[in-house]
This record gives sequence, structure tokens and C-alpha cells, in this order.
Amino acid sequence: MEELLNGTAGDLTQLKYAFDTFYFLVCGALVMWMAAGFAMLEAGLVRAKNTTEILTKNIALFAIACTMYLLVGYHIMYSSESGGVLPSLGFLIGTEHAADTVLAGGDDAPYYSLRSDFFFQVVFVATAMSIVSGAVAERMKLWSFLVFAVVMTGFIYPVSGYWKWGGGFLNEANFQDFAGSGVVHMAGAAAALAGVLLLGARKGKYGKDGSIYAIPGSNLPLATLGTFVLWLGWFGFNGGSQLVMSNISDANAVAQIFVNTNAAAAGGVIAALILARIWFKKADLTMALNGALAGLVAITAEPLTPTAFGATLIGGVGGLLVMVAIVTLDKLHIDDPVGAISVHGVVGIWGLLAVPLTNDGATLGAQLLGIVSIFTWVFVASLVVWGIIKAVMGLRVSEEEEYAGVDLAECGMEAYPEFTKSAK
Amino acid sequence: MEELLNGTAGDLTQLKYAFDTFYFLVCGALVMWMAAGFAMLEAGLVRAKNTTEILTKNIALFAIACTMYLLVGYHIMYSSESGGVLPSLGFLIGTEHAADTVLAGGDDAPYYSLRSDFFFQVVFVATAMSIVSGAVAERMKLWSFLVFAVVMTGFIYPVSGYWKWGGGFLNEANFQDFAGSGVVHMAGAAAALAGVLLLGARKGKYGKDGSIYAIPGSNLPLATLGTFVLWLGWFGFNGGSQLVMSNISDANAVAQIFVNTNAAAAGGVIAALILARIWFKKADLTMALNGALAGLVAITAEPLTPTAFGATLIGGVGGLLVMVAIVTLDKLHIDDPVGAISVHGVVGIWGLLAVPLTNDGATLGAQLLGIVSIFTWVFVASLVVWGIIKAVMGLRVSEEEEYAGVDLAECGMEAYPEFTKSAK
Amino acid sequence: MEELLNGTAGDLTQLKYAFDTFYFLVCGALVMWMAAGFAMLEAGLVRAKNTTEILTKNIALFAIACTMYLLVGYHIMYSSESGGVLPSLGFLIGTEHAADTVLAGGDDAPYYSLRSDFFFQVVFVATAMSIVSGAVAERMKLWSFLVFAVVMTGFIYPVSGYWKWGGGFLNEANFQDFAGSGVVHMAGAAAALAGVLLLGARKGKYGKDGSIYAIPGSNLPLATLGTFVLWLGWFGFNGGSQLVMSNISDANAVAQIFVNTNAAAAGGVIAALILARIWFKKADLTMALNGALAGLVAITAEPLTPTAFGATLIGGVGGLLVMVAIVTLDKLHIDDPVGAISVHGVVGIWGLLAVPLTNDGATLGAQLLGIVSIFTWVFVASLVVWGIIKAVMGLRVSEEEEYAGVDLAECGMEAYPEFTKSAK
Repeated sequence: MEELLNGTAGDLTQLKYAFDTFYFLVCGALVMWMAAGFAMLEAGLVRAKNTTEILTKNIALFAIACTMYLLVGYHIMYSSESGGVLPSLGFLIGTEHAADTVLAGGDDAPYYSLRSDFFFQVVFVATAMSIVSGAVAERMKLWSFLVFAVVMTGFIYPVSGYWKWGGGFLNEANFQDFAGSGVVHMAGAAAALAGVLLLGARKGKYGKDGSIYAIPGSNLPLATLGTFVLWLGWFGFNGGSQLVMSNISDANAVAQIFVNTNAAAAGGVIAALILARIWFKKADLTMALNGALAGLVAITAEPLTPTAFGATLIGGVGGLLVMVAIVTLDKLHIDDPVGAISVHGVVGIWGLLAVPLTNDGATLGAQLLGIVSIFTWVFVASLVVWGIIKAVMGLRVSEEEEYAGVDLAECGMEAYPEFTKSAK
Repeated sequence: MEELLNGTAGDLTQLKYAFDTFYFLVCGALVMWMAAGFAMLEAGLVRAKNTTEILTKNIALFAIACTMYLLVGYHIMYSSESGGVLPSLGFLIGTEHAADTVLAGGDDAPYYSLRSDFFFQVVFVATAMSIVSGAVAERMKLWSFLVFAVVMTGFIYPVSGYWKWGGGFLNEANFQDFAGSGVVHMAGAAAALAGVLLLGARKGKYGKDGSIYAIPGSNLPLATLGTFVLWLGWFGFNGGSQLVMSNISDANAVAQIFVNTNAAAAGGVIAALILARIWFKKADLTMALNGALAGLVAITAEPLTPTAFGATLIGGVGGLLVMVAIVTLDKLHIDDPVGAISVHGVVGIWGLLAVPLTNDGATLGAQLLGIVSIFTWVFVASLVVWGIIKAVMGLRVSEEEEYAGVDLAECGMEAYPEFTKSAK
Repeated sequence: MEELLNGTAGDLTQLKYAFDTFYFLVCGALVMWMAAGFAMLEAGLVRAKNTTEILTKNIALFAIACTMYLLVGYHIMYSSESGGVLPSLGFLIGTEHAADTVLAGGDDAPYYSLRSDFFFQVVFVATAMSIVSGAVAERMKLWSFLVFAVVMTGFIYPVSGYWKWGGGFLNEANFQDFAGSGVVHMAGAAAALAGVLLLGARKGKYGKDGSIYAIPGSNLPLATLGTFVLWLGWFGFNGGSQLVMSNISDANAVAQIFVNTNAAAAGGVIAALILARIWFKKADLTMALNGALAGLVAITAEPLTPTAFGATLIGGVGGLLVMVAIVTLDKLHIDDPVGAISVHGVVGIWGLLAVPLTNDGATLGAQLLGIVSIFTWVFVASLVVWGIIKAVMGLRVSEEEEYAGVDLAECGMEAYPEFTKSAK
């Protein structure tokens, strides 16, 4: 009898482990899908002559992120000492959990596959890196960008990631960042900002008299598709960050996160559309798209504790902020073709600051410490790396190449050879 | 010993709850993805100069649907009295199920998260509204459309939704509509038809002598992508409508639904291709796409009881009907740029009428009652709302704006600024 | 007490069954999504004037595959005698598992829905057929292609599929092909090669002096999107091929497969990019895309036993091989517009040969037997069928139609009527 009991209880533990692993893998696959979203979003927002190159960057950075994080990043982020600042170096992912360890139970018993954890984490790194590619589009050398991707995904991101999610000092300091408004989004934006400052604006973006010229994206259906892809993927991004789902309380939490993530994106769209109508007298599609993404970034720091209506408001504020940020950066002549720094950086900070509004466990002080620590680390480290790359390989294509489009110079092929003026 | 037993039994109940919640969330995410499908389908089937605006409408209506359904629609649809016609008004979603209630068991014990139910339902509303946007494309004012979206998703859809799924009089009358051929698709088409009748046809679509001019879609790869997205999303739409999956019988049911949904879409494609070859002597891609969607709509009223081969036939009839309907509406000078009224309305009715063919529990009488009730309600209510909007704000853009394309007038930007004639 | 025990144990068995069924359906839906990936990839790599037709082929072949495999293919593949070469003919899928059989337990008890198995298998057939459409693009008659699709998906594929996965002689001979580098990918490539040989190259591809002209794809964002879609879908393709997931060991296996599938694709991208930089001095996007797909095909024969780093290397070799193969086929004047024969055929063979490197249970001899058997069968059978179609209906459009584009001749509509030269 007791054996039978053990049998059923043991089988149940196995099934719970399998369920949480599957939940994690499905969420990870959704986050992987965000790579396609960034690629489409960025390809839609650049000019036709720079499209092949941005696509190449996107698929290449994803491949590099997956490989570098496997080789060193994951170890740095999750195998370093608790409470520390300096990570320890190491390689590859560890050994999968043995069934015995799982079945032994206890608080430390693993409840999902280590490999599924790696899969979930690796697609997060790629997300952070994808943010960078849009901001430096249309003028940066492709290979310089890829070299930066190696360092960012293998070292820079994992260090600040360790501070929070690997149990480092920010975690000890009670910094709250549920799914990564700071660890992922603001970090990506900080790296992008460093790159943009060293790189300069696109030719023709700002006049000598300080006037600002709009450079319209070449393919808005692609940009819209990319936004929808990101919206879908974000359910995995935030929903998977609950980490476990196999009981009533966690299942309810995951459902709340799905609802809130969706509500925040909706709030961002509506707020951006209304503000654009007031400001520009038009239903500005690119602002609506940025509003959706801003809503998603804003709720990412705390998608669980707000009510659905609260999430709509948090996302809505994100949608307003992103427009203000885009206009302000343009006035500062910081040229970010897709608005990545505004969406992921400015709104990422808003998301982190909004956590204490609904989560009693969070404090404004800890949130500020986290923002300053992560931003400073990623920005300074990126500035150094971009600077070294600039000195060694150069960051920017030649003026002729920029005028002709980086596609021909870097990739040797046009994205739309039969559609554009130059093709005729 | 007994406690251990209870422990295992209780853990099992928790895991079942988590599993059914996850199943629901995954299906809901697939339905959310259909929003991208509608956006791409419609963007592909309109002319380039009206593409930005249809994209804006699609992302905005999704955001509005999510917000309005949260604020009032969900309450109307699911908190009103059993068996009634008039819903009761209320706000927001309720309190999440407590673990105690779940573990207490019994027939009324909740078996998945209330939030996951809301998530699944809210993406359905958005689907109904997406149907409307295609039919009124290329000539309706954007803001007028969005005002209608507020009323449709907050009030009109929830009322008829309550009649069936909220336990209202159609449910009591044994009207059968498994996943919403009527509640969702025909309802969307009825609202669209009302709008189209008040709006009139696009300039240049019908000659003064009654001749009909084809206005080809500008981007067929997008339309095809949209159809594939919808096909994929429909597995969630129909598969999730089983509502529970955590036992053998329900799991088998969900699998049957996946197979039948796929088979019906396949049948629709094949039937439409063959009929197009006979009628037009060509392999008409847009008819193949409409055939797929017609197959999907047709099987939605009853995706469980047919065999896979039966589902293929039901979808195939849908594929034939949609072509007849599209040609007929054109002869009646009812201008529906994407065929939405035919796909979702005419074929939705076919799906509802086909239920008694395989489901012994359904009757033709109850199906007719449901069709007449839902169609009449949504059509009349929509006519009133469209009419008020027409009187207050106007429905239609000016002739100059229509000629120049609504993109510039409404959104201030072109979708493909470097590709089209006007750009050169 | 015992009843309660049985109750809990029985409920657990039910939940396991439901979980494995759901896992299978989710993976199947991801594989279905690959159909969209092939459609976008191929539409992006052909010229604008042949885009409508390739889209039509893709949606039609998917519908045909689903219907033919339902009518005959599934029966041939899975209901024939163990260990045999000749399959037995039969129709439709069988009766769903009764709950009793599942609950009775024992080694033969079914552990997931038969319908979910059919769903998973049917989308695999469609994948094999999708491979063919790209290779014969831009010059084959549409209806001739569809007739071939009927035979391929109803008969040719199921026979060799039966040899391995249906328990036929290759399975007995210990041929190892986890998710179908051979059964699916090489089989598709063999059918494609037979078609291409009978069909000949596109006009203008090879000069009379033997020179080779590049014919660039018309829409690289679409091709990139297609690659990302395939990458995502492949998690279902490989991950679902573990067939069961409801215990620790299988859950760990599925997680490893996800990680390895991703790592191999990443390895393929990086290897192809580096080789392209050395060979062509450019970051060749189409080679990066083919590298990703090659990595995925390479790991498909054995995605479980390699480490993640090993998978990166296996994928990387695939990425190098695919470039060599594409260049070599071009030198042999075998015209494959999308590189399908190289990606799925050449690299599929590499994947099969690589199995013994990490899987001790595999032997080079059995792998070679499998490669030769499947390739010979599919190639010869396809050659016969293509030959009959050529004699009866013709394979190739007229020279005028090819020059004008097959879209107008076959489908009567352009894919981009407002964007291309001919439209102006």
C-alpha cells in the first residue's frame, strides 16, 4: 500500500516537473519569436536601401546571443556567488537534474528542467541585444555591430543580470524587476544609447540650422507585424517569469500576468493614439506601435500585482511617455531610427519606478539603486567596448555607402530589387 | 496516512487546475495572434494608399476591444441572469478564485483561473471587431470607426454573447454554437453589413451602367500570411472552446477539434480552388485564401462531432459558398473589399445550420432562432450606432481624400513611401 | 480507501494522458506554422512576377497534404505490417482510444490521443511537400505541381515513412532518424530533385557559355520572416518527436531538444556568415538564412544526444555544407531557386551521418542503408510520377508565360500590382 502511495505521489511529482518544464519551454518559444518581431519592426522602420542589412544583423545577433550565452554568459549570470558584484567566470551550462534529486523533494528540489531554464534565459539575452540593433540602424558597420553583440551577450548583460536574477547585490537590496524592464529592456537601451552617441546621427536627419527631418519607414505593414509578434511573444516573456505554474496560486498568477500584459499594451496604444491626435492631428501609426511596445515594457517590471485596470493605466502612461521621449531625443539630436531608446530605456525606467505603486514589497530607494546600477554599468561598459571597436575597426560606414544604402556595401544585395527607385 | 492521501489528491487537483488554466492561456494567446492575421489579411487586400490606415484601425480596435471588454463587456456577458434577454450592467472582472474553493471540489468548483477565462474571452471580442474593419476599408473615417468599436465591443457583442455563452435565452433554447460561428463571426459580419450599407461603395468600384470593376489587393504575400496566421490561431479559437482538457475524454475532444479545424480549412481551400478553375479558369489565390477562412468559419459552430472527413466536407461547402456569396454581393453592389461579410456572415450561417447534421442534440429550429436573434440584434443595433455616428461625425472621408488614399488624410504617412507610383 | 487510491491514481493517469496530448497538439500547431514559413521564404526568394503562384502552391499543397494523408497516407504509414517493405492500403484514421484502454494501463496502453498523433503526423507530410515547391518555382505549371502533391502526400511519402516510423524494415534495421532529417527533409529534397531534372532551369539562369546569373529574390524581409517562422516551428518538429513528456526523464529530453535545436540553427547562421565573408566578402543574408535552416535540418536526425555545444557544431557544419552544395548545384546547372535541395537534401544526409557521432545506438551502416533506401524510393517514384505528368499535362509553362511571370498565366493576378515595373 505504501509503495502504491509513493508510486502515485512520485508520478505526480514527475508530472508537475514535466508540466512546469513544458510551461517554461512554451514561454521560451514565444520569447524566441520576439526575435522575428524585432527583425520585422526594424526592417519596416528603416529605408528600403538599409533593409537587408538590418535583417542580417537581427538574425546574426540572435545566433551570436545563443552561442555566447551558452559558452560563457549563462554561467556568469547564474553560477556566481550570492550577494556579490563581481561575477565568477565559467563555461557552458551544467548537468541536467537527475530524477532522484527531483523525487527526493524538499525546498531545494528542482521543479523544472535546467535546460528549459537555459532556453528561457537565452532568448532573453537575444531580446536585450535586439533592442540595440534598431537604434544604430542605417549607418553602423555590420561587423562592428556583431563584435559588440559578442561582448554584450557574453559578458555585459550577464553581469548586471547576475546582480538581480543570479542572486547578486541588487537582489539582496530588494530591487524588484519581475521580468526585466531594467535587466533586459533598459540594459538594451543603455547599450544602444552608448552606441548612438559615439556613432552620430544619420546624414540628412538634422539640418545645420537644427531643423529635424522625418525619415519615414519603408514598410509599415512589416513594422505592424513586428509589433504584433512582440505583443504575442511578451506573454511568454512576462508569463514565463513566474517560473512555476503547477499549483492554483501560481496558475492564477500566470493568468493575471497574461491579462495585465495585454491590458498594458492596449492602454499604451490608446494613450499614444489620443496624444498623437492632439499633438499631430493625425492617427499616427508608428506612435500607436510604439505605444503598444511602451505599454509592454512598462508592465514588465511588475505584471502581477496591478489589477487589469491598473495595468491599463501603467501601460497608458508608458504610451504617453514614449512619445514625449521620442520628441525630446530628436530635439537633442540623438538619432534613434526606431525609437528603441525611448521605448525600452525611458519607459523601462517608468516601469521600474511604478513597481512600488502596486507592490508593497518594493521601495523607491531600491528601485533607484537598481536603475542607476544597471544603467551605469551597461552604459559605461558599452561605451568602452564601442570605443575600442571604433578605434580598431571603425563604427560607421563611409558617406558614400550610407548614401547608397548599407545593403549593397555590407550585404551585396538589395532587399527589394524590383520595387524601389534605384531598381529602375 | 490519510493526510498523505489528501496531500496527493489535493496536489493533483491543483495540478489539474494549473493545466486547464495553461491550456486556456495558450489557446487565448493563439486567438490574440489572429489579430495580427486580420491586420495582415486586410493590409494585403487593400490598395497601397489605404494600408497605413487599415493597420492603424486593426491595432487600435484590438486595444479598444481589450479595454472596453474589461471595463463593461465581460460583466454584461457573464454576470447577467440565467435565461434572460436583457443583460445587467456592471464593471470590470471579478475576484480570482480562491484556492480553498477549488480544493473543496464539487460540481461548481472552478477548474481554471477566472483570469484565464477573461483572457480567452477578450480576444474573441477583438476577433468579432476585426471582421468589421475589412468590410468598411478604404473609405470610412478612422475615428468614426473607432467610436463604433467602443460600442460594439463594450455593449453590442456582449449582449448577444450573453444570450448564448452567458446563459441567456438562446442557451436555454438549446441553440448550439460551439466556438462562435454565430456569436462571433456572424455577429461581426452583421455589424459590418450595417456599416457598409450606410457607407456605400468605394469610388470606382461600380460603374454607372452597373458594371463591376476589380480593385486588386496591393500585397498578396501579406494576405497569405494573414490567412496562415488565422489558420494557426483558429486552433486556439476552436480548441480552447472545449474549456477543459484535463481528462481523457476532454483531451480526446480537443484533439478531434484540432484535426477537424485543420481538415475543414483544407476542404475550403480545395473546393474554392476547383470552383475558381471552373468559373475563372485560373487558380485564384484570393479565393483560395477565402476558401480557407470559410472552411474555418464553417466548422466553428461544431468542430467536435463531425469525423475528420465530415469536417473536410463541411469546410468544402463553406469554400464553395463563400465564392458564390462574394460574387452575389458584388452583383448587389454591396462593396466589401476583403469579402468579410461573405466569409464570416454567409458561411457563419452555413456553419450554424450544419450543426444538426452531426450533432444529435441540435435542432434546426433552435439554430434558426439563434441566427435570427443574433443577426437581428447586431444588425439593428449597429445600424442605429452607425447612423448616429454618421449624423454626428460623418462616416465617410471626402472624395479627394478617398482618391488620394486615406493614409495621408487620416494617418499622415504612407505605408510604402518608396515603392508606389505616387512616391516617384 | 482503496477506491480513493484508485481514484487518485486514475485521475493522475487521465491528467498524464491529457498533458501528453496537449504537448503533442501544441507541437503540431508549431509544425503547421512552418507551412507559413515555407510560403514566406519561397515568396521572398522568387521574383515579384512569380509570387502569387508560389503562394497559391503553398496553401494548396498544405490543403492537399492534409486531405490525402487523412484519406490514405496515415493508414499506409501506420497500419502496415511490422518489419515490411510493402505497405498495406487502407483509408482514414482509426477510432479514438477509449478511456478504459488508457486506464487499464500496461505497456501497450495509449498515452495520448490518436487524433493528436494524426495532427502531428499530418503537418509533417505537408513539410515534406513544401520543400518541393521552392525548388520547382518560377517555371512549373501549377496544376501539374498539385497533381504531384496528391501522389507524394498520399502515397510516396507514407511508404518510406512507414519503413522507419511505421515500424517497417528500416526501423528493424536500426536506422536512426529522430525527427526526420531523412524521412521528411531528404525525402522532400529527393522529390524536388527529380522534378527539377525533368523540368530544367529557369530561362536566363545559365548562359550558353556556362556562365551563371544570379536571380535575386524580390522580397528579403519575407524570406527572413519565413526563416524565423521555420525556426520557431522547428521546436515543435523536433520537440514533439520525443512523443511523450509526462515524466522527469522525458521532460528533460524535450528541454534538451529545444536547446539543441536552437543551438544548431545558431551554429548554422554563424558558420554561413563567416564562410560568406571569406568567399564573397559580404554578409550574405540569403546564406545566413540558409545557414539557419541547414543547422535545423542537420540536428533533426538526432536532436537529443548531443550537448548544446555539440549541436552548435553539427549545425555549423550544416551551415558550411549548404553553401558548398548551393554553389556546386549551380555549377552543375541544377536550378533550385530557393536552395531547397541543398538545405534539405545535402544537409539532411549530413544530419543522418552525424547521428553515430553522439548516439552509441546508431551505426554508420544502418544510416547509409536508410539514406540509400529512402532517397532511391522517393527519387525513382517521383521521377516516374513527374514523368507521367509531363507526358500527360506537361510540366513547364510556355516561354512567353515564363517571361511574363507565371502569376498572370496561372493565377490571373499580380502579387504586387502597384509596386513593380510592369505596373507602371
